[in-house]
Amino acid sequence: MTHQLFEQHRQTLEDAVEAIRSRRHFSPYPEVPSGRIYGETAKDDGARAFENRLNAPFEIDQPGEVARVGRERSPYGIDLGITYPRPDLDTLLKAVEQARLDWRTADVETRAGIALEILHRLNQRSFEIASAVMHTTGQGFMMAFQAGGPHAQDRGLEAVAYAYEAMTHCAREATWEKQVSKSETITLNKTFRIVPRGIASLVACSTFPCWNGYPGLFASFVTGNAVVVKPHPGAILPLAITVEVMRDVLRESGFDPNVVTLAADAADEPLTKPLVTRPEVRLIDYTGGSEFGAWIEQHASQAVTFTEKAGVNSIVIDSVPDLKALSANLAFTLCLYSGQMCTTTQNIFIPRSGIDVNGERKSFDEVAEAIVKGVDWMLSDVKRANELLGAIQNDRTAARLDQAAAEDGVEVLRAGDPIAHEQFEDARTRSPLLLKTDAARTDRYMREMFGPIAYLVATDSTQQSIDLMTRCARECGSITAGLYSNDPGVIETAQWATADAGVPLSCNLLGSIYVNQSAAFSDFHVSGLNPSGNATLCDLAYVANRFATVQSRIPAAQAPGNSKTEEAVAAQG
Amino acid sequence: MTHQLFEQHRQTLEDAVEAIRSRRHFSPYPEVPSGRIYGETAKDDGARAFENRLNAPFEIDQPGEVARVGRERSPYGIDLGITYPRPDLDTLLKAVEQARLDWRTADVETRAGIALEILHRLNQRSFEIASAVMHTTGQGFMMAFQAGGPHAQDRGLEAVAYAYEAMTHCAREATWEKQVSKSETITLNKTFRIVPRGIASLVACSTFPCWNGYPGLFASFVTGNAVVVKPHPGAILPLAITVEVMRDVLRESGFDPNVVTLAADAADEPLTKPLVTRPEVRLIDYTGGSEFGAWIEQHASQAVTFTEKAGVNSIVIDSVPDLKALSANLAFTLCLYSGQMCTTTQNIFIPRSGIDVNGERKSFDEVAEAIVKGVDWMLSDVKRANELLGAIQNDRTAARLDQAAAEDGVEVLRAGDPIAHEQFEDARTRSPLLLKTDAARTDRYMREMFGPIAYLVATDSTQQSIDLMTRCARECGSITAGLYSNDPGVIETAQWATADAGVPLSCNLLGSIYVNQSAAFSDFHVSGLNPSGNATLCDLAYVANRFATVQSRIPAAQAPGNSKTEEAVAAQG
Repeated sequence: MTHQLFEQHRQTLEDAVEAIRSRRHFSPYPEVPSGRIYGETAKDDGARAFENRLNAPFEIDQPGEVARVGRERSPYGIDLGITYPRPDLDTLLKAVEQARLDWRTADVETRAGIALEILHRLNQRSFEIASAVMHTTGQGFMMAFQAGGPHAQDRGLEAVAYAYEAMTHCAREATWEKQVSKSETITLNKTFRIVPRGIASLVACSTFPCWNGYPGLFASFVTGNAVVVKPHPGAILPLAITVEVMRDVLRESGFDPNVVTLAADAADEPLTKPLVTRPEVRLIDYTGGSEFGAWIEQHASQAVTFTEKAGVNSIVIDSVPDLKALSANLAFTLCLYSGQMCTTTQNIFIPRSGIDVNGERKSFDEVAEAIVKGVDWMLSDVKRANELLGAIQNDRTAARLDQAAAEDGVEVLRAGDPIAHEQFEDARTRSPLLLKTDAARTDRYMREMFGPIAYLVATDSTQQSIDLMTRCARECGSITAGLYSNDPGVIETAQWATADAGVPLSCNLLGSIYVNQSAAFSDFHVSGLNPSGNATLCDLAYVANRFATVQSRIPAAQAPGNSKTEEAVAAQG
Repeated sequence: MTHQLFEQHRQTLEDAVEAIRSRRHFSPYPEVPSGRIYGETAKDDGARAFENRLNAPFEIDQPGEVARVGRERSPYGIDLGITYPRPDLDTLLKAVEQARLDWRTADVETRAGIALEILHRLNQRSFEIASAVMHTTGQGFMMAFQAGGPHAQDRGLEAVAYAYEAMTHCAREATWEKQVSKSETITLNKTFRIVPRGIASLVACSTFPCWNGYPGLFASFVTGNAVVVKPHPGAILPLAITVEVMRDVLRESGFDPNVVTLAADAADEPLTKPLVTRPEVRLIDYTGGSEFGAWIEQHASQAVTFTEKAGVNSIVIDSVPDLKALSANLAFTLCLYSGQMCTTTQNIFIPRSGIDVNGERKSFDEVAEAIVKGVDWMLSDVKRANELLGAIQNDRTAARLDQAAAEDGVEVLRAGDPIAHEQFEDARTRSPLLLKTDAARTDRYMREMFGPIAYLVATDSTQQSIDLMTRCARECGSITAGLYSNDPGVIETAQWATADAGVPLSCNLLGSIYVNQSAAFSDFHVSGLNPSGNATLCDLAYVANRFATVQSRIPAAQAPGNSKTEEAVAAQG
């Protein structure tokens, strides 16, 4: 096989491998949606491409279409009107099983080259994907561009880099020589084959279909598995475009495009359970709620499953140099995408005796007030508010705010009211609901309350705050943890406490860096050590179990291609 | 921490890392039980050390001893009379939980150095361990020396090498710099911590306690987990000695020896189920029967489980250059340790129309007769027979031969009678039972018949033979596969067929190399792709999920140890 695509993108892969080892900043896909980078017409082209998708069938020439599904409604209030093929699983999987045969025997460079070309083309489609992500997830445009475009592509490339490292860790062929006696030396030619598990299924979520979906998608794909992409019925379009691009590149490269297929479904006729329990499905990547994740882990025992479920994330405030800088930073975290990130902070632990601010004592209420003011300021400009908050993906999230505010044991510090959207009048919006409660009320804050809901929890001490933060991680799962402290001893304590609880810690973040940001190639996202998920985006464990290395061995003198064998065979012929 | 042990054994580790990448022959622990290598008194010292163990309590100063257990009886007919502490799990696990705290924070070099020193000391104890393995498993002395000594140590070192690769794959610290605007650059100091899962449990088997046990034991240990070793009640001694050595080195290195403990039990009061379902146990390595393995996979859902279960292994005979060389090779495979290896061939598929032998047609019956003669010749010298066959570990294995011979649908080609042991008159022995059957009788051969039982199966063609071999692998699990063919096309077909079925293939092995041998650092043992197990000894997937990498990040200006922080803190003090 030629390795033209591999050679074309080789530098990108090598840089990515260097980055996952050094953990330094790396982002080959520019995050700024600028015409100078993406081309002056890129923005308009992307917008037009998205508009052309609306109110039309999304065509994918894959087998087994038995119906059309699709009722995506933008959280900004627009019905997308796009339909997708709903497949008959028997027909689809039979075709996938056939398609994967050539893909599994393609060599590592061929598959990696194709994956890199796909990422490159997805990057060129970032504006179109941004609109698709915005109008399915409810993210603001800038965030949709970054999280659905370059940052998701980064995460996909990261998975390719890890998989490449794992697949090339050992030699493909070896000559094994062992002297077994004074007169006898055994020489074996060994061939080590990368054997993929079979068919993989990506079960994606409605809030970050690309960012959370690409790692598993590309990890399974590049290791030689076929992938059936099962988007959330509320966020099909971003992954349908992704599947389209993948199929295009596969076809152009001489492979059966059914190596990657779409299994779209409707909320009232879901496909996930029948799909993930099929015996042919040997790998599952799941992002979504804890309950359904647990169902998959329990019932899809024929498959190796990688999950990212929910998290209850905490920040501990012990002491800060500057209350305004703190509240500005926290406000951004709480507002971004209306708290619908799996990395958003839910619990903010503050000693009831207050904290030290640059040598001065500030009471719990003063700190709480600063945070409320920070959020209010952040949303005081409607353009900024709209862009930052985006829209609420799901009705149930909006309803949860009202429930949380009405419960006993909490005091509403800031109401989570809607904020009108300048551009989309039917947008479903909510601003952060801030609640005060006491450390004793674990029934309130020690559970997942997804959405723009944060509890400011009064504790006896910073030590109790750290204990509660790690208890949240152990019992409910946590994906991020934060700490503000001037005390090196507190920092040291928190570092191992959070590490043991399997949650990465961000200390003293002020300015333009936030606890809910996770950078591909540098930050490990989810540890697998607490209930928030069983896998890490990305590490070696995330890729190495998607294939096995299976050897064959033959005496060197008889190996195919060895002239002695050929002579022997010829002599026998 | 000093890295004295690491530096002392560094070359061994580096050579091991090179070997797992190149897959070339490597074996740092000499497999020949020679006085010139191990010291002239080593053999006698080892024998005396073993004898001193007999009829006495095995002392381990670990907490929670509530009773004494141990009724090991040598398959050679001797009661060992050794007792071991039976622990109270609550007390034991509390102590282990405490012991692991310092172990988990020790750096990679410290842990690797200690693991390498342990392997070095185990190697020095190879003669003692050989006697312990011989008189628990029933292996002949030479095999017990190799499989319980150097080859097991090789497998342990291989696991250490893989774990070292995985733990050092990424930087421990990084400076992450990102320009977020024209005027602002964010600089974070990041620390990446290797966080072990917690407590691991090794559930070992009665036939290869060391060879199958060391990989998981050392993989969990070196990645910072504590390990509770749960030997099979019939083969405690080899692992008790191992635990003793590990505790000695831990203690000498300043660690709490309870990082490694022994959980011995009795067959009538087993500890395995209560142990592996404890919430503290987060990793399980299991070798043993399929049924109990499946029970663990289902019930110990709190843990990540690595299993090696049973295999039904096949050889396909298509054509050979020399029938005698073939039968000599097969005879050795079938006789070695009375077929009690997980790699021993059970099914030998031969076309009913016969095979080509160097241009001449040989009928099925002629091939079968040659194999029977080969086994008879192999056992014609009683010393060789005793050493090769060893003894039958378990009564049930002996009974299985009688059952298999009496079933309908099979013809007994060679009875599996006992062979008197020259040295141990009460030894439980059986020689290979060879049965002829037809491809249609899948009820006979397509199930695990553990022990010296082999089916010679008449097939329609070599293609059917290959199909049945891979069907065995898919349905029953296979750990080894063999092929004899002069036809490059047949070899090619079999290579991908077996790879897809997740079973390594040995082609045309003649002379002193056998299908049931698996060489550490070169051969991947078990693929995880068929029911014979879910993991490979060893690959990256085998080690990478025993820990997670959890980062903490802090603005560079505030990182502990940074002079600016110290100044800032001092200024605030």
